[in-house]
Amino acid sequence: MIDLDDVRAAARRIAPYVARTPVLRREIGAGAELFLKAENLQATGAFKLRGAFNRMLQLPEGCAGVVAHSSGNHARAVAYAGRRLGLPVTVVMPSDAPPGKSAAVEAQGARVITVGSDSEERRVRALTIAGEEDLYLISPYDDKEIASGQGTAALELVEDAGPLDRFYCPVSGGGLISGCATVLSALGDAEVIGVEPESGDDTRLSLAAGERVTSPPPKTIADGLRVRVPGERVWPMIKALVDRIETVTDRELMDAMAFALFDLGVVLEPSGAASLAVALREGRGRCGVLLSGGNIEPDLLAEVAQLGPRLHTPGNLGSAAGP
Amino acid sequence: MIDLDDVRAAARRIAPYVARTPVLRREIGAGAELFLKAENLQATGAFKLRGAFNRMLQLPEGCAGVVAHSSGNHARAVAYAGRRLGLPVTVVMPSDAPPGKSAAVEAQGARVITVGSDSEERRVRALTIAGEEDLYLISPYDDKEIASGQGTAALELVEDAGPLDRFYCPVSGGGLISGCATVLSALGDAEVIGVEPESGDDTRLSLAAGERVTSPPPKTIADGLRVRVPGERVWPMIKALVDRIETVTDRELMDAMAFALFDLGVVLEPSGAASLAVALREGRGRCGVLLSGGNIEPDLLAEVAQLGPRLHTPGNLGSAAGP
Repeated sequence: MIDLDDVRAAARRIAPYVARTPVLRREIGAGAELFLKAENLQATGAFKLRGAFNRMLQLPEGCAGVVAHSSGNHARAVAYAGRRLGLPVTVVMPSDAPPGKSAAVEAQGARVITVGSDSEERRVRALTIAGEEDLYLISPYDDKEIASGQGTAALELVEDAGPLDRFYCPVSGGGLISGCATVLSALGDAEVIGVEPESGDDTRLSLAAGERVTSPPPKTIADGLRVRVPGERVWPMIKALVDRIETVTDRELMDAMAFALFDLGVVLEPSGAASLAVALREGRGRCGVLLSGGNIEPDLLAEVAQLGPRLHTPGNLGSAAGP
Repeated sequence: MIDLDDVRAAARRIAPYVARTPVLRREIGAGAELFLKAENLQATGAFKLRGAFNRMLQLPEGCAGVVAHSSGNHARAVAYAGRRLGLPVTVVMPSDAPPGKSAAVEAQGARVITVGSDSEERRVRALTIAGEEDLYLISPYDDKEIASGQGTAALELVEDAGPLDRFYCPVSGGGLISGCATVLSALGDAEVIGVEPESGDDTRLSLAAGERVTSPPPKTIADGLRVRVPGERVWPMIKALVDRIETVTDRELMDAMAFALFDLGVVLEPSGAASLAVALREGRGRCGVLLSGGNIEPDLLAEVAQLGPRLHTPGNLGSAAGP
């Protein structure tokens, strides 16, 4: 378990390296006001940079380098942080990662090792490399410093948007939602709603069972939400602080991405639009919505663009500093 | 001529209605730092809302309604402001305006009248309607209150980004650049660079001639930059405050739009990417870049998406509040 002080400490630690992303505002339907934390505008295009910096700024003395396993955005974040901090980085990526994501990692000067598409396989491979080469493993989510770092996104959101009734957040391994839920529960009484793909609902099943449940490899366009079991270290926080899980279909993700393009003016990847999809479906009151990332392949973005506008109400978008 | 006090007054006047848009930061090439004012994230997706509110908040007593002529974004802004302020709105739009733009205007409850594609034709028609129906004409650019309102974008940019060496701004009729140049010249010594489409370079020709020159109807994908002659009332400010004009091709606009999608995470329309295209080509030092709008048709957005990433440097985007 982490607490608000851990997140506040992380916020101070990473401030020189990570951008304070804007909060966009949008009224939809009858009586829902969305405050959208645009982490797709973060450096490297996703929230993952927060946790990566918080972890990598606290490595043991004399650390020779780091290794990470990731479907893409964590890898990119660790590679970016490694370059900024002067640390050698190795990342283990799945063979079906979007080519743009692996290219972006290599562009930061990191070594990339490719394995199969299963998240367990790359986790084991990264552990092996860490042992063989004496590298420090940077977990993508199952680490309290990672969770504390990711929670800084929610801290900024609450500071900029004010009190919230609901908070929508994507869930994969659970690092982001556990850090954010820690903030939300300490600073108010917002309902915390996790969002998973319909075919990758391991956290939903785990909460129903009261213990961690592993799901089969999910089939979803949300390549960032394919972890098959909640992280062991973050699970107690998820169990204690997440009120419910909602699931989304690929079609709903596509529609939410089109809404983001034409009505918000921002680019989201499928995982990054998961929270928005549910907020558009059921949002009521003042809703915080974590837009987690925007790294998307050209073909998929073109397909989403062809869907055209998904206008919910006359445009009234603005930054939280606005009306 | 307007001065900084006019823009400051406009900023106070429109603050309850218009969002303070974020400033994104990006290092490119060797030694250029871009501070990108993301007016595509403004309500209605473009800067035009600033001038429209500043003008419409100062109408004569008992005004029965307003009329505007526009290729799209000004119409959308006036329609939005009319709805917010309870004023009937009529807009004259060109027959070749993107259908999404006219639909967005009608969605705000405004009356739309369609004429040919030439900007002079719609200007004359709007004047006629104003006279016949006793409506107040809201000029898209040739009005000092419009220029003062648009200048608030530059005021926010300078407040958030600090001193600038250069400022890149699209030019059509000249309302935006005259308001912004007023701010830049009062608050520093940045070089003010206007950007026009290659085939619609009336402001470039006018500055070279020392007097207003009318160009033939331009052929460009930048549908917001088709005005054929600088506005009469804003021309003295353009002549006095704009240091030079650069032109861009459709191909450069497409590349800049792709850069915005994949490297900035934001959607720009062709006119909105004009300043970015030139900043990417020649930017040096601390460059302010006005991203003027993001209202784009699905087919064109899909075409741009297919271009894929235009990576200039490893990602280091952030809001101005960040590192």
